Order: sequence, then C-alpha cells, then structure tokens
Amino acid sequence: MRLLRACCVVCFFRLRSGAMVLHLVPRWSARLFRASAGWRRTYAQGASVGLKWLACPRGMYSPLACRGYSSVPGSPEVMLTSERYPVQRLPFSTVSEEDLAAFECIIPGRVITDPEQLQACNVDWLRTVRGCSKVLLRPKTSEEVSQILRHCHKRNLAVNPQGGNTGMVGGSVPVFDEVILSTALMNQVISFHDVSGILVCQAGCVLEELSRYVQERNFIMPLDLGAKGSCHIGGNVATNAGGLRFLRYGSLRGTVLGLEVVLADGTILNCLTSLRKDNTGYDLKQLFIGSEGTLGVITAVSILCPPRPKAVNVAFLGCPGFPEVLQTFSTCKGMLGEILSAFEFMDTECMQLVGQHLHLTNPVQESPFYVLVETSGSSAGHDAEKLTSVLEQVLNSGLVSDGTMATNQTKVQMLWALRERITEALSRDGYVFKYDLSLPVERLYDLVIDVRTRLGPRAKHVVGYGHLGDGNLHLNVTAEAFSQELLGALEPYVYAWTAEQRGSVSAEHGLGFKKKTVLGYSKPPVAVKLMKQLKALLDPKGILNPYKTLPAQA
Amino acid sequence: MRLLRACCVVCFFRLRSGAMVLHLVPRWSARLFRASAGWRRTYAQGASVGLKWLACPRGMYSPLACRGYSSVPGSPEVMLTSERYPVQRLPFSTVSEEDLAAFECIIPGRVITDPEQLQACNVDWLRTVRGCSKVLLRPKTSEEVSQILRHCHKRNLAVNPQGGNTGMVGGSVPVFDEVILSTALMNQVISFHDVSGILVCQAGCVLEELSRYVQERNFIMPLDLGAKGSCHIGGNVATNAGGLRFLRYGSLRGTVLGLEVVLADGTILNCLTSLRKDNTGYDLKQLFIGSEGTLGVITAVSILCPPRPKAVNVAFLGCPGFPEVLQTFSTCKGMLGEILSAFEFMDTECMQLVGQHLHLTNPVQESPFYVLVETSGSSAGHDAEKLTSVLEQVLNSGLVSDGTMATNQTKVQMLWALRERITEALSRDGYVFKYDLSLPVERLYDLVIDVRTRLGPRAKHVVGYGHLGDGNLHLNVTAEAFSQELLGALEPYVYAWTAEQRGSVSAEHGLGFKKKTVLGYSKPPVAVKLMKQLKALLDPKGILNPYKTLPAQA
Repeated sequence: MRLLRACCVVCFFRLRSGAMVLHLVPRWSARLFRASAGWRRTYAQGASVGLKWLACPRGMYSPLACRGYSSVPGSPEVMLTSERYPVQRLPFSTVSEEDLAAFECIIPGRVITDPEQLQACNVDWLRTVRGCSKVLLRPKTSEEVSQILRHCHKRNLAVNPQGGNTGMVGGSVPVFDEVILSTALMNQVISFHDVSGILVCQAGCVLEELSRYVQERNFIMPLDLGAKGSCHIGGNVATNAGGLRFLRYGSLRGTVLGLEVVLADGTILNCLTSLRKDNTGYDLKQLFIGSEGTLGVITAVSILCPPRPKAVNVAFLGCPGFPEVLQTFSTCKGMLGEILSAFEFMDTECMQLVGQHLHLTNPVQESPFYVLVETSGSSAGHDAEKLTSVLEQVLNSGLVSDGTMATNQTKVQMLWALRERITEALSRDGYVFKYDLSLPVERLYDLVIDVRTRLGPRAKHVVGYGHLGDGNLHLNVTAEAFSQELLGALEPYVYAWTAEQRGSVSAEHGLGFKKKTVLGYSKPPVAVKLMKQLKALLDPKGILNPYKTLPAQA
Repeated sequence: MRLLRACCVVCFFRLRSGAMVLHLVPRWSARLFRASAGWRRTYAQGASVGLKWLACPRGMYSPLACRGYSSVPGSPEVMLTSERYPVQRLPFSTVSEEDLAAFECIIPGRVITDPEQLQACNVDWLRTVRGCSKVLLRPKTSEEVSQILRHCHKRNLAVNPQGGNTGMVGGSVPVFDEVILSTALMNQVISFHDVSGILVCQAGCVLEELSRYVQERNFIMPLDLGAKGSCHIGGNVATNAGGLRFLRYGSLRGTVLGLEVVLADGTILNCLTSLRKDNTGYDLKQLFIGSEGTLGVITAVSILCPPRPKAVNVAFLGCPGFPEVLQTFSTCKGMLGEILSAFEFMDTECMQLVGQHLHLTNPVQESPFYVLVETSGSSAGHDAEKLTSVLEQVLNSGLVSDGTMATNQTKVQMLWALRERITEALSRDGYVFKYDLSLPVERLYDLVIDVRTRLGPRAKHVVGYGHLGDGNLHLNVTAEAFSQELLGALEPYVYAWTAEQRGSVSAEHGLGFKKKTVLGYSKPPVAVKLMKQLKALLDPKGILNPYKTLPAQA
C-alpha cells in the first residue's frame, strides 16, 4: 500500500484497498461554514434541534416552501394541532386587552399581535403542528421575562417559551393560544474567558453566531448541529441537544456550567456560575437541562468551550455490511483514541435519496453502508498518521470496500453534506414518520430491517442513519402521504421494540408535544410519577409549555 | 536543545533549560497501583472522597493511628458531634428491639449492634465528627435496601447511608443515633460492555477494584482519587466526586449514564439505563448525583468508561512564580490539547511538608511552585513528541526553571506521591483547617497569600495546592491544635473572599455536616429555598442523612 503525504491539496482522493493516496493538511472544519447561504434566521425563534429552510438561494431545496409554508401565497394551511390530535385545552385564562396593555408596559413596542407575524411562530418547521396564539412577546432581559411570567402566573395565562423554533417534536410552538415568549432579542454575549474558554451569554444567542464568536478566540462550541443557523443556545439546553460533537465533547449536562432561569411565578433563579466544579448543594440547573421549557424559562447560559482543534480530517467510507460498520467503529475508537470526533453512519437508501432529491454524488463505490469518520486534534501530522493507519487497516481487512478523504474545506463540506442533508432529502420524498432512538449499537440496525420487512410496499423508503458513536439511530419512513394505517403499523411497534432493548424512544430530540405519550416506553411509572411531582413543585399552575413532555395527568 | 528518545528506560531524567534528555515509553500509569499496600478496606464503607489509612505497613504514616483512632488501645475518643457542634437532635424515633427484629427479618445475620464494630463507622476518617448510632445494617440487594427504608420511613427512623466513609465534610457518619445503612456488601459488577465501555455495578463496589476490573478489559474508570482503595462508587456519585481525571474526562454528571436509587419511603427508582443519549423526560438521576445521600440511597450505577490510554507520561516541573504556573497551564492546554489528562499544582510549603513529614525528596531544584503534568494518549511516539515540544518551550521561555519526567511505573508513582500525599503530610503537621474552593484560576493563589498575611505566626503553615486545570484550590492551614480564634480569623473570611470572586465554597468535597451552613456563600436564597423544597418532596419526613447538606430550616 502506497502512502503519500502532501500539504494544501485542494481536491480529495479515492481510497481503494491496494492503492491509497492520502493528503492531510491542518485546517479547520468547513462544516462550520457550510450551507449558511441556504439558512436564514427569522424573528420567530424556538427551542431545540432540527433544520430550518426559509430561503433557498442557489437552488437549495426548501421543504417549507414545497410543502406549503404559509408565507408562500396559495400554500395550504397546516392543520391545527387541536384538530389533528386528541388534546383538550386546559382551563387557562385567555389573553385580554388588559393583559396586552400590561405586556406593553413591560416591553414597550415588543408585543406582537399582527396575525401575519404570528403565523411563523405558531407552526413548527416540520409543518406538523400548529397553534393559534394571539400574542408574541419579545423580551430583551431576564428582568422583563420575570415580569412577564409574574403577570402570566397571576392571571393563569399559559406560556410557550420559544427559541429558534427548530424542534423535531412539536415542543417549540403553542398547542392552543399560549402566549409565545420568544428569546430572539436576548442575544448578547455576557462574557468570555480567554484562558478557560467559558462563555456566558443570553439564551437567545444563535448557535452559529456563538460558534463564530468563540472560534475567533480559538475555541469551539461543545455542540454542533444542523440547525445551528437558527437554533438558540437556550433552546439547545432546554432540549439537551446532542448533535455532531457529542461523541467527543459529551453531554450538555457536563459542559453547561451554569444557567439563569426564570421560574413559572417570575422568580429569577440565578445559577449562572462559571466554575468547572461546584458541589454546594443540589445541582439545580440540571432540572432545566432537557426539560423543554416546562419547568422554567432559561434566560442565560454559562458553557465550557473546548479549545479549537488545530487539525480536522474527514474520511467517508463504504462498508459491505453492518457488522463491518461496527468493526470499523471499534477500530477507529481503538486506534484514533482521543482524536476521534465523529462517527456517523447511513445506509444505501439514504445515499439513494440524497442522490435522487438533492443531486449529491456518491463519492465512493456503491455500498450497503457508509460511514463518516472525523478526527480533531492538536497536530496535523500526528492525526494524519493515525488516520492513515486506521484506513490501511480497515481497507486491508475488508471492513471497508472503498473510501475517500477530504483535505480542504469545500470537500469536507461535501462529505458532511451527504450525511447532514439526509433529513432534507427525506422531506422531499413525501410524508416522513420520524424516530430518534437510542439502542445498543449491535442491535441498532436490526430495527431498520425489521421495520422494512414489516411495512413492505406500504412504505416508500425505510432508512436508517445517525450518530453510531453514540448508539443513536434515526429511523425514518417515507410514504406518499400521512396514513393512519401506516402509523398503526409503526406504532407502538417501534417503541415496544426499543423498550425491549432497554433503549430510549427519544435519544436527543426530546418528547415535546408529539412524543409525550410514549415516555412510558423508556421510563418506569415511578419515574414518571416523580417527574410529575417535580412539574407540580416548580410550576403548580402548569402554565409553562403545557401539553408538552409529560403525558396528561390520569 | 538536544533530544534523545529511547525505550524502556528504568529511571527518570532531570530536565534543565539548555540540556534536556527525554525518554518516553508507552505504558500504563503506575498511579493506579501505587500505595495499595498502605490502604485497607474495612467493613465500614462510606460516601465520598478523601483518604483513609488504617494499616501502615512499610512505615507509612497513619493519621488514624497517630491522631487517636479508637481501635488503637489507649487512644483518645473523638468528641461527639453533638457536643462539639450546636446541633439539636430532630424528633426521630429511636431504634427499638422490635426494629432490630424487623431488620433481622430483612437481612438475617447482617444487623450489627456490637459497640466495637460500630465504633469505626460512627467516626469520620479525619476524626472530627462522631455519632452514636447503635445499629449498622449491611444489605446485599436493592430490594433489601427498599425494605429497610420502608420500615424506617414508617417508623420515622433516621438513616445515615454510608459507603467507604472517606468523606471530607462529615457527611458519611451519623450525627446522633441514625441507623447506619452500609453499601459494603453491595459490591457486585452487574454487567460490562466490551465495545461501549459501559459498566453497570452495585453502589458498594470499591473504586480501585472497579478500576482493575475495567483495565483488564482495556478501559479505565472516568474518575480516580486518592481514596480509591476504600471509597465506593455509590459514594463517589452521591458526592459528585471530582478527583484527578476530571480535567480530561469531565464530571460524573456526564459520565454517569444511569442510577438505581431507593427513595426515602422504600420506593425503588430504576433509572439504570446504559444509554449515552436519553431525552425522555426529566433526567432524574441528576437529582441524586451530589445530593450526599439526602434525597435517596444510590444502590446501582451505570457509568461510561473511557478506553485505556496506550501511553501515559508524567512531568514534574518547578516554576518561579504563580503567573508562570498559569502560563505553563495555557501552554500545555494549547500544545498538548486532547492528550493533557492532569495539571496539578502545589506551592513550596507543600513540598517542605512532604519532605519534613514523609521524607519524600524534591526531584527538581527548589522553586516557589511545582506543577505535575500528565498526558494520556493513544500513541506513545506522538505523545512524547508533543510533550517534548511543550517542555522545550516552557524551559526556553523561562516559565519553568527545572523539571523531571518519569518513564516507568515506579518513578511515575514517586512523582504523583509528591502531589497526592500532601493531605497526609498536613495531617502530620497538626490540626488542619481545610478548604476546597473553586476560584477563577488567575485569582486562585491570591487567597493563599492573603490568608498567610492575615494569620501571620498564628498558623504553622498556610499552603495551597490542587487541581489547577479545574480551578480547584485546596487551601489548608495547620496549627498546633484547634483554636477558636484561628477559626474566627479564617471564617467567614475565606468564604466571603470566595463569594466575592463568585467561586464555590465546596468544589468537590460537598457540604456534608461541616460545611452545610456556608451554602449561602455560593448559592442565592432562591436556590437554597428550591433545594429545601426538593428535599421536602423526596423525603418529606427528612429521615435520609439528616443534618447534612442543607442548612437547618429557619
């Protein structure tokens, strides 16, 4: 096997067993800059993770436009959540003229009641749920949030906290007429410490902007995800977002050092410390991480940013089977060790869909499975050597049948696009039934095969992809249109299958509105009961993001 | 500067600017095996972190023996907590003959009432607090713990959960006559997954034994601390122990994947999942991490173990001043990146004390400060190159005046001993006032200087050392004997100083009994109120580890 090393190569090279050419150069991942032209932030910001396309220059696909986004003239309206789902409005008050006047006193000029402007923040980006809120509030400070919540609490008005509105489970839009409390204008960096890498900022800061901010200071954000151009850091924390850097930098439960939260009654809970270690009493911030806005409104975040790696490399490989994918993962873990920063996989149907709908080209020979391996390290030369050894080994041992490696930003971006744009390709394929599951890695793909067999020709496509390194499968099923029969074939089958493996029915997307009824598949009744007690303790009137996360009281 | 590289060198080499000789070989840190001869586990196991010497072969110092451990004939008794501190017994029931009979039914033969046997688990290892419990229970299963707590809850009997009894703040022993509930016999590994590195085990497993278990399978525990030979994993989690690997592998809040907990009323809460990602509802396990046994009794733990590094190197360096320590840290962070696994510091007084009391030799020239740098990586050659570059830089730039590097297990152990045995040396120096603080790194040592000036000749020694990489200072003051006047000069001064820097008055040791009154220096009243509400929700009768963690109700 011949190995060549060079610097500053501007294209990427195929690797085939028997003839491998490697070119690795130190650089920073282009992923951080990719596709930004196709993403636009609007004033309606919402919690959690996902993708959002509102403007599509350069021919990019917009699912919102194609599937009837209401801002497009003549597009069909999304069915109201209360019409599609069996949900009853709880006895909250309705917003009165006096309430609007009170809000106007608190945040003059930032009380939005114009129906046109309200449309976008009443609908989730997937266009599957729609509320009918009559008012959007845009505070700039925690004190304003506090005053708003104090008023709502007193008046028994339900509140829907909203970040970038990029959630996958209907958690970030109202179900009925909840007051929408947007963090969009809470977008200031409060402090950044150049030695420790600790960032303190308001909850409405957009992840991509924070990424840029800390990169200029030689750090990176500990999380990265497709929706970075829209999602807010507060929403990320409220969802406990996983994303693409989880394998390397771990959970937000470790990297979030402090939070400021406004409780349901307007009390400001300041746990916004910037300390790596703090064992003084119970760690209250953990209550709010992943609570999807149901226990309090996160208004500021203190987060530990890792140093910016000096070298990032991406390899895209074809594998002959899922056992080989698993073995490739083990090999990478063992040989790349501390520099392995992502290990993603997708099946051949995913590749077909990104080809068919997005005209992306498969850079390697057709294979049943593909994996994307990313390394991030402090020495380009060392990282290249390690990755080379790994690639030699997996090619020679037949674990990988073909591969390619990117050496510049554009090509890195191209490889990541194959993985990251699967969601978009699926949206073009028809109605999508989406499942985000944690499973033991060795059983992870069995579910895809089972579901494919079970559905037969009723489904257009049954695909599996995701963060293999974290045991996180995205199982997606497409059909021409929504069908109750198909849904019945999928659920509770998928959830029961997952529960049997002691998996999680929501690995990283949360439960929001759409998954709250399946909580019991992953958590025992004792746990669900305690969750409800916590909700009752922190929000006794239940005004914060009602109808979300927890199943309705029996 | 001349650089030589070789393999399997059995001694270590001085580094001086202008003439550096480096020998680095791949190996596993000897720290994991060091000093085990001087450590012994007894049947009394207790929560949290710290050190414990019960047997001292090979001339090792035993603070327990020297400072009057009750098992030593003629040694003075430790004053009862209720006599030394202003604490009132709460109106719990007292253990009756009927209670003992009930316990005997649940765990036949494992109800200990022999006063001799009870002595050790009524006293903390620092010999500062002593309870007067009349009964020690040694369950083997969660079901037994459940039955015990159900009985205690019904009977209003207070319970003191105890792991390895290695805590630093009096959290792991009874204050009055609480029933001691030991996890010592709950010491079984439940499962280990060879690919993911996920370990599931009972709460009473000793950390060092778990370390050995996973090392044999090519993984390591994500935490390591001096008390590893005695402390229980359940106690580590209950304390949210930090320790020596925190810098690299982060908080237990990220690495603990699941817990099984028995609640105050005996309900078993099973959140013992083995998933890296799980966003189904609130993350209840976080409530119990760091709650010091006051919210529930941890009975089993699921924890993610990192792969065992192929190469570990340790350098011990002398620095001319604290600014140089900080700059050395920045240099290491920048140049060692992902392989930096520890950055510890100690001042010159620490070195004098380990020399004076333990006869350890300073391996470098006398300096105002010393740092210990450890790397752990997947390639011995690459790691050596990186460390060499760092050492060249810090020596050439004057940040470091002298240094030494260990290349074999014995020498690595010797270098680590200089840092790890400071606590022991302090104990030999007299009565020790101990503070475990999180502070902004750039102000961290200012407190030591301030306190030294403030106390003047009233203190024997005022020393600073700790986990610089985590911003964690251990400030220790020694005196001939306990003195109320000295205490008055230290407190609340130290806490107020820390609060002014927005630091934490307990970085990793927790609050336990001895620090619970200072919670307010690091947490606002709103947070303290919410903590009390959580305690009331989870343990309405307050039977779990009473008088700990939270200040008494107003």
